[in-house]
Amino acid sequence: MPHASQPAARLGRRVEPFDLNAYVARACREVDRALDRFLPSEKTKPATLHKAMRYSLFAGGKRMRPALVLAAADACGGSWKDALPMACAVECIHTYSLIHDDLPAMDDDDFRRGKPTNHKVFGEGVAVLAGDALLTQAFEILARSGGSSRHGHRDLVLELARASGSLQLIAGQVADLEGEGKKLPLSELRYIHERKTSALLCASVKLGGMSANATSAQLKALKDFGYNVGLAFQIIDDILDVTQTSEKLGKTAGKDTAAQKLTYPSLLGLEKSRREAARLTRRAFAALRSFRGKAVALEALADYLLRRDR
Amino acid sequence: MPHASQPAARLGRRVEPFDLNAYVARACREVDRALDRFLPSEKTKPATLHKAMRYSLFAGGKRMRPALVLAAADACGGSWKDALPMACAVECIHTYSLIHDDLPAMDDDDFRRGKPTNHKVFGEGVAVLAGDALLTQAFEILARSGGSSRHGHRDLVLELARASGSLQLIAGQVADLEGEGKKLPLSELRYIHERKTSALLCASVKLGGMSANATSAQLKALKDFGYNVGLAFQIIDDILDVTQTSEKLGKTAGKDTAAQKLTYPSLLGLEKSRREAARLTRRAFAALRSFRGKAVALEALADYLLRRDR
Repeated sequence: MPHASQPAARLGRRVEPFDLNAYVARACREVDRALDRFLPSEKTKPATLHKAMRYSLFAGGKRMRPALVLAAADACGGSWKDALPMACAVECIHTYSLIHDDLPAMDDDDFRRGKPTNHKVFGEGVAVLAGDALLTQAFEILARSGGSSRHGHRDLVLELARASGSLQLIAGQVADLEGEGKKLPLSELRYIHERKTSALLCASVKLGGMSANATSAQLKALKDFGYNVGLAFQIIDDILDVTQTSEKLGKTAGKDTAAQKLTYPSLLGLEKSRREAARLTRRAFAALRSFRGKAVALEALADYLLRRDR
Repeated sequence: MPHASQPAARLGRRVEPFDLNAYVARACREVDRALDRFLPSEKTKPATLHKAMRYSLFAGGKRMRPALVLAAADACGGSWKDALPMACAVECIHTYSLIHDDLPAMDDDDFRRGKPTNHKVFGEGVAVLAGDALLTQAFEILARSGGSSRHGHRDLVLELARASGSLQLIAGQVADLEGEGKKLPLSELRYIHERKTSALLCASVKLGGMSANATSAQLKALKDFGYNVGLAFQIIDDILDVTQTSEKLGKTAGKDTAAQKLTYPSLLGLEKSRREAARLTRRAFAALRSFRGKAVALEALADYLLRRDR
């Protein structure tokens, strides 16, 4: 869990202490409650499918993307009530992508967040379908949201569909799959990270902004923020895979090395990778300047994501 | 391919001959052209993914669902131009569901439409992702459509998401998977068929109607039509699996029997199954009465679907 921090202070401004722990805990509670409302119960037929969807959705994820959605809504003066459907939709997309990525035909992972992966519990067939159902559910949730006066359902659906589609999120996974065991240049690794991680983080903050009726200048700032935080986040993920234990990560550590996956540490070394992550985080902070202190939650989240150790 | 027919004449009305062959051929051409425009080219990175998506999308499918979308738009006085995005979205959903259903962890099919299945050509990992990408693409296409004055993007996305979600299309596939080798009652078989087939056929005609600004009475009639045609269609699929060769079907025949799948013929016998399909088709025709002769294309399609031999 994140710790209380004053990230804006690092930029030379005096700010009230911001309790990120409390903020994230409240976000998790609200998101979990909303997801529980949006999803059919475990008893709803077909029970196996709904159990499988809920198993991964409530497996103890950090809810980082939903927290970013809500924090972006806060930065734009919106309400959590309006932003919650977007937060839930993004988390459904994230969870589906993990279920499918963990499949034997892809990353072949047995553990995720300290628990057996979806296909280990429910079998491959149901795991594929639970992923499909969560992906579909994401769009249903968006359609059931209120939208905002500037941004209707068309904008919301386009934003999420593009970020999760064949040119972004799925493109990243394909390139990752095809890059295994190959020596690729840094530009290709960046291509993968931008798509596997930045794309959905960008969409998260933009959707949060859209729920709060954000101006196009605000959306542009949120996009820059999401892009840089996303890249930094993925570089740190690569670093943690090398430096941490499986127990701490709640998933198999050292998988990247074992799979001969291209990572920032394998290309640049640990120290340079850490510096690159810090540089990207500074750029993310810079993107928030136009919010003039209203983006405290986004700043605190970015700061935490850089310093996390799991 | 369908033959020229005068289905309305069977209901005792005198009508102009309707050339279903020409209608379906024109629909296929227009839908193929629109799909080609909506989808990234085969050269667009990641090329493997876009090749895989296009491989199954352009594998010679009968385009029955898109034809139903366009025919429903015609029945409601709409234009093909407005209905084409809905037709393409529905075909993307249908194609994704086939790619995933054919996977070794599900129906484990090597052939589809006379060609090797997606995972046989591109491998399981890419096949899962190509399915995911087509599912996502469907919602992007809907969002890029014009909607209509009565039915905005919210209605369109809700309609497609519900029909393809965990309570309908995917529910049918899960129940089908879980029912293998089990002796289930007719009600359970009906549950599966309603979800695996009727749900998306209902959504097809409703989306076509929505593109044409249909009234709620028209949408209700289209839904009844889609439901009954869908059930009839699936019963006939079951019958053809028993009575036709793999060569004729373009997919492995006798699979249902081999997999000990519950089917209408296995429960009711061939003759009773044929009578049930005919009864449902009559109900589908009855649902079209309120269109007062404007639903000729829908009538011709339903008539063809009952008499088809592949």
